[in-house]
Order: sequence, then C-alpha cells, then structure tokens
Amino acid sequence: MDAEQTAKAARAASAGAALAGTGQKNAALRLMAERLAANRTAVLDANAADLAAAKEAGQPPHLIERLRFGEKKIESRIRCLRKIEALPDPVGQVFRSDRRPNGLEATRVRVPLGVILMIYEARPHVTVNAGAFCLKSGNAAILRGGSEARQCNALLGALWREALRENGLCEDAIQVVSGSHEEVDRLLRQAAYIDLVIPRGGKGLIQAVKDKSAIPVIKHFEGVCHVYVDDGADISTAIRIAIDSKCLMPAVCNAMETLLVAESMADHLPAIVEAFRAHGVAVRGCEATRAAVPGVEPATEDDWRTEYLDMIVSVRVVADAGAAIAHINTYGSHHTESIVTDSESRARRFVREVDSAVVLVNGSTMFCDGESLGMGAEIGISTDKLHARGLMGLEELMSYKHVVWGSGQVMGEWGA
Amino acid sequence: MDAEQTAKAARAASAGAALAGTGQKNAALRLMAERLAANRTAVLDANAADLAAAKEAGQPPHLIERLRFGEKKIESRIRCLRKIEALPDPVGQVFRSDRRPNGLEATRVRVPLGVILMIYEARPHVTVNAGAFCLKSGNAAILRGGSEARQCNALLGALWREALRENGLCEDAIQVVSGSHEEVDRLLRQAAYIDLVIPRGGKGLIQAVKDKSAIPVIKHFEGVCHVYVDDGADISTAIRIAIDSKCLMPAVCNAMETLLVAESMADHLPAIVEAFRAHGVAVRGCEATRAAVPGVEPATEDDWRTEYLDMIVSVRVVADAGAAIAHINTYGSHHTESIVTDSESRARRFVREVDSAVVLVNGSTMFCDGESLGMGAEIGISTDKLHARGLMGLEELMSYKHVVWGSGQVMGEWGA
Repeated sequence: MDAEQTAKAARAASAGAALAGTGQKNAALRLMAERLAANRTAVLDANAADLAAAKEAGQPPHLIERLRFGEKKIESRIRCLRKIEALPDPVGQVFRSDRRPNGLEATRVRVPLGVILMIYEARPHVTVNAGAFCLKSGNAAILRGGSEARQCNALLGALWREALRENGLCEDAIQVVSGSHEEVDRLLRQAAYIDLVIPRGGKGLIQAVKDKSAIPVIKHFEGVCHVYVDDGADISTAIRIAIDSKCLMPAVCNAMETLLVAESMADHLPAIVEAFRAHGVAVRGCEATRAAVPGVEPATEDDWRTEYLDMIVSVRVVADAGAAIAHINTYGSHHTESIVTDSESRARRFVREVDSAVVLVNGSTMFCDGESLGMGAEIGISTDKLHARGLMGLEELMSYKHVVWGSGQVMGEWGA
Repeated sequence: MDAEQTAKAARAASAGAALAGTGQKNAALRLMAERLAANRTAVLDANAADLAAAKEAGQPPHLIERLRFGEKKIESRIRCLRKIEALPDPVGQVFRSDRRPNGLEATRVRVPLGVILMIYEARPHVTVNAGAFCLKSGNAAILRGGSEARQCNALLGALWREALRENGLCEDAIQVVSGSHEEVDRLLRQAAYIDLVIPRGGKGLIQAVKDKSAIPVIKHFEGVCHVYVDDGADISTAIRIAIDSKCLMPAVCNAMETLLVAESMADHLPAIVEAFRAHGVAVRGCEATRAAVPGVEPATEDDWRTEYLDMIVSVRVVADAGAAIAHINTYGSHHTESIVTDSESRARRFVREVDSAVVLVNGSTMFCDGESLGMGAEIGISTDKLHARGLMGLEELMSYKHVVWGSGQVMGEWGA
C-alpha cells in the first residue's frame, strides 16, 4: 500500500459513491452477501491460516478469540448485510425544512462525509460491517484491519471489489489495506483526502491514532458502565437488570462493570451477591458490601476504573443518587449507565447529571445497541461528544448541506 | 494567563453552566446588555486606546477596520444579546423520541459540549457574541481575542464576569484571556479540559490552530462563493441576485466572488457587466467575457481562487450547468453558491453535485445568514463537514445524550 495513492483513490471514488443510486448500492450489498455465502470455505480457510500464524507468533488468547471468524460469525455478517440493505438510504434525506417569511424554503439535506478510514485490531467481521455502512451511506472507505487478520481481510477485500465492480461502482470505494505501521501513520496525515478516522480496538491503539492523526478522529473507547440501585427500587427488577447488564454478553463494551447500591438498600446486598454468584459472576466489594456478605473479595480503587469484560463485578454502597452520580462521573468512562428507581425526580436528576453517552432508567445496559434503540444497526459506539455520541449508525456517518429554494429573493433594496 | 489553570477553571465552571436554569442564563445576558449600554464610554475609550496603539504599531488598514468597535457596533451587540436571550434554551431539548416494540422510549436530548475555546483576530464584538452563545448553550467559554484588542476585550471580560456573578453563575464560565502565543499553544494542548476549538480569522491563523491543536477544531475558512446564471434564466432576476450577492456586504465571507454564465446566456454579458459597473464593481473576465464586453480586465487562474472581500468580481463563461459545477468544486472553498435557473432538473443537479455548505436556488448568497435561515443568529460559518456545516447557531454548540426510559426491560431470558 502507498498511503497517498490509497487516499487519493478513495477521494476520487467518493464522488461517485455519493451520487450512487439506492438500488445500485443495495445490489452491491446483496451481491456481497451472496459472495460471502458462496466463498464460505475459502473465508474459513483464510481465517484458519491467520489463526495458525497468530498462535505460532504467540499472540495472547483474547486476540486469537477476536480473530476467529467461524461459520456463525459469517452467517451473522450475511444477516447484517441484508439488514443494512433494508435500511433507508440516508443520502439526500431532507431532515429539516423551514419556510421563511420571505418565501425562502430553508432545508437541510444529508450528504456523505466523504472518505472514512477505519483502523481496527483483528476482527475480520468489521471488514464486512464497516464496508457495508460506508457503502450504504455514500462514503468511500479505507479499511485497515490488524495484520493478524491479513489473509482473511484480503479475501474479504477482493469480494468487496467484485460486489462493487459488478454493480457499476468504483472498486476503490471500499479499499481493504494492510501495510506497515509507517504507512498507517502516513495515511493519518492525508487530511486533504480523508475526512474522518474511526479507530476501534484497545486504548493504546486509539490513543496512538488520536495522537498521530491530522484528520478528525471519533474515538471508540472502553466502557466502564454502571447500574445504580436507588433507594426504594423494586429489588427483583434491580437484580434482573443487574444480571442482564453483567451476564448476557460480558465481553461487550456496554456490559456493566460496577453495581452501585444506595445505603438504604444495603439489606438486599446478600440477595444481590447471591444472584451474581448463581450466574457465575465473581464479586468484588467495598467495605460495606464485604461487611454485609461473607466471602466477597475487596475491591480496590483500581477496580472502580476497570473494564473487566469478564464475569467479574465490583459492588459499592453509596449514600444516595447524588453520590452514585459523583462516582459515575469520576470513575466511569462516559459510556452507558442505568438507574433502577421508582422516583421520577431522581430518575430525572440521574439522566440530567450523569455525563454519559447513553443513560437508561429502569432498563438493562444491554440496550445500548443500534437495533434496540431503533437505528437498525450500529458501526460502533462513540465515546466522543462532537458529531456523534454513543451509537453510530448510518446517519452518524453523514454530514449535511443547507439547501435553500427561492424564487428570486434578494436581501437589499435595488430599485427597478 | 496560565493555560492549564485557565482550562481547568473552565472545565470546573462547565458543570454548573450545563445545569444553569434558562431564567438565570437569560438574566445574565440581559445584565450584560445593560452593562454594555451603561459602560459605552469606557468601551469606546478602551477601543480608542487599542486603535491608537495599533496605528502606532503600523498595523494594516483592514486590521484597524476590524478592530474598530464604535457606537453602532455596540448597539448591534446589545441587540444581539437581546436576540440570543429570546432564543429557546437548547439545553435539555428532546429532539428525537422513538417508542420501541418492547416499550422502551429511546430519546435524544441536547447537552452542552463542555468547554469551547474561541481564538480570533481583533474584532471585539466576537467577545460579546461568542460569550453570549456559549452562555445560552450551557457551555463554558475561553475567549482569546487578538492582542491588538487587548484593552477593549479586558473591559468586556470584566463586564461578563459581573453579569455572571450577579446572577449566581461561576465567573469562570466566560474567561476572556490574553496571553502570549506560547500560552495559546499550551491552551491548544489542554484536550483533557477543552472540548472544541473554533478559530476565526485569516487562513494563516486557522491553519496554525489546526496544526497545533490536540483538541477537535471546527474551521471557519474563507468564502470563494459563486452565482451561476443558467441557460434560459430570467436575466433581470439573475442580475438582481448577482448585484445583491456582490454589493450588499462585499466584505463578508458569503459575498459572491465569481459569476459563472452559461454560454447560451453570453448575449447578456454586456448588461451584466454594465450593472456591476453601475454599482461600482470592477470586473475581471475570462476570454469570452472580454470578447463580449470592451474594457474588462483579464481574470487569471489566481482570480478564480481569490476571496476579494471587495468591490471586484470575476466573470467566467462556462459551457453549461455541469461545467459550472466542475468550476465551483475545483476553485471554490465549499462555502455558499447559488444557481439562477428556470429548470427544475438542473436546479436539483446543482444542489446535489455542488459540494458546498450552503447551496441556493434563485436566491442571493447573502441569505447564508442565521437570521435569514431561521436559526436566530449565528456564531460563525463552518467550512468543515464534521459536527456542523455552514451556519453555526446554538444547536451546533451542543452534543446530545441518548436517554432511554424503561420499566424494567432486560434483553435476555432469566426465568423467575
């Protein structure tokens, strides 16, 4: 890969991508789904080769796990392609319209951002996902997956090129690249051709991209997510939400890591800890939790800041909703939090004062999810505040234009 | 000024600013308007001192002009403060709401970005304007005007502190700072405390801020704006729009710099040039324009890229709408363009294919203006695509939160 050439090719392809018809884009998504199904064996083989190489290189188990792209994951990507095909085309959507007193019709119309660079570790499924999101939203994509996934990604890139070419779209609209770290660093300086960088992966990767990039970055950082059990909450609801938030998918970023319990609810700590244990969750607790329940490991200051991504939970007793909010804003990662409460006023205070992308009342943190919240699907979860916060779907990959329809209006008085 | 201390103080103030009531913020805006009126003489004196120093330092005339903050400008700032007071409070606005099949109510609620740093040259009126926008939108502001405007800005900063303090708001919510270039560079590295930088001024300033900033930047670049007179357009409408776009306020960024004329409309070139000359505009033209009208100076390649901000226009004959679009996308600055046409299909093509923040059909480029387009007022005009494009009003200074209201929903099946 030559970074500048890749970026220029993407920029050139982006003009056509922006103007491509919905039918054309959907046909390419459909063909990609078909090719993925037809080439299942080749994809599995490429992934097996990547896995073998990674194991031989002594890569850590969690990386090996993320690298795995088996039958089930392929099926899930095919479903995802069909889902994105079915979503409305965001390009050209008029999302605001205001007739002005002078007769001007002031509208805002969604347009693609242009060229989007995704940098991610392992996870070949992102190569399918991100390509599909960028294609549907009329953006050109440069997809740079981890070098561990090189063979599988190269094959997926070839399938994308076919799907684009056979539908009359420019092959460079989705470029799957490998290339050295130096070439990636050079990509991050192509601000003249690339409009947005989305890094996904570990904290180190994201911070390195942010530090080196001359292009705007939307970060997808970790999730240290909380559930707070408020004074007077229904305890069976609270336990159900806590178990769902922790146990359903412990390895996702919106899984709960810390449960906060109002002091007045401390009598329920044994039941809470018992429920966690019954589901195989190891509990670490503050002093009050440990005093209330035998055998709970101590939680250190570090625990409050830790994204376990595992069947571990830390539990802390706090004075009240205000203390819970303070804990979350201090130790959390501004991702996803939930309050379980019967109090309307404390619910309103919690959603107002907690500084996180997604704040739920009486709901599981698992609902920080594109499909659950009506966005169809998501390409990621932004932990930034600018442009897009929280779930990023098709709309969040768009910019807009002010389009103003007139009939000869001018501002000044110019006589005849 | 100590950069880190300033940034930390702004961050600390931002929490209170975000939660401040509408009445409290409006009272501070009202008091600022009153104090500005009451301290008119002191403001004029401070500005006179700045002007004298700038003249003595041999500053160029256009900078002296922008530095001037006379009676009329003070009046206009007082009106602006009252206008912003009257605008709806964007904090807490629910701008999307979707009841999901499982009963969850998924909403999006506007929240402030946090801390906004404005860096601008001269123009003391920005100190009033930007402070008011940030206050109303619940953000904390750090305002760093040009050192030429130091005395006037220091006085305006003191008035802001009074207006905040007397209404129970933290004084640090609007900090007007001076400080060396080195301190500004240090400010630009305070990404832990500052959420957004908005530079306003010359290309050099904006590029320097962009290059040095570790904080996201929304650029306010120049406007090389166009009007295109399409085949078959009503010529008197076209001339009226061209004159309004060029002559009403030639020094603003949305003033037209180049008029493009369809070949089939070349017979009207003498009338067009005559109209410009009658309004005191010097015309530079392409070969075809010069062949059609005697005495037109030649336009060079450079002219097509020049923001005159003056009573000068360049005129170019182009084959058709496609050639006009190509010229605009090649030479323009993606700011504001207008087509004068009777053709619905060519109007639709123009608004779709021109890659600019504001695209008008049969309207003057002067309407790239917050009030004209129903936004109340604007803090600036973004030439970026991310977060905010074109006019930036209160809403564009906001982020949002996903707030989800449930009644005990979980995603998994957990039995009794």
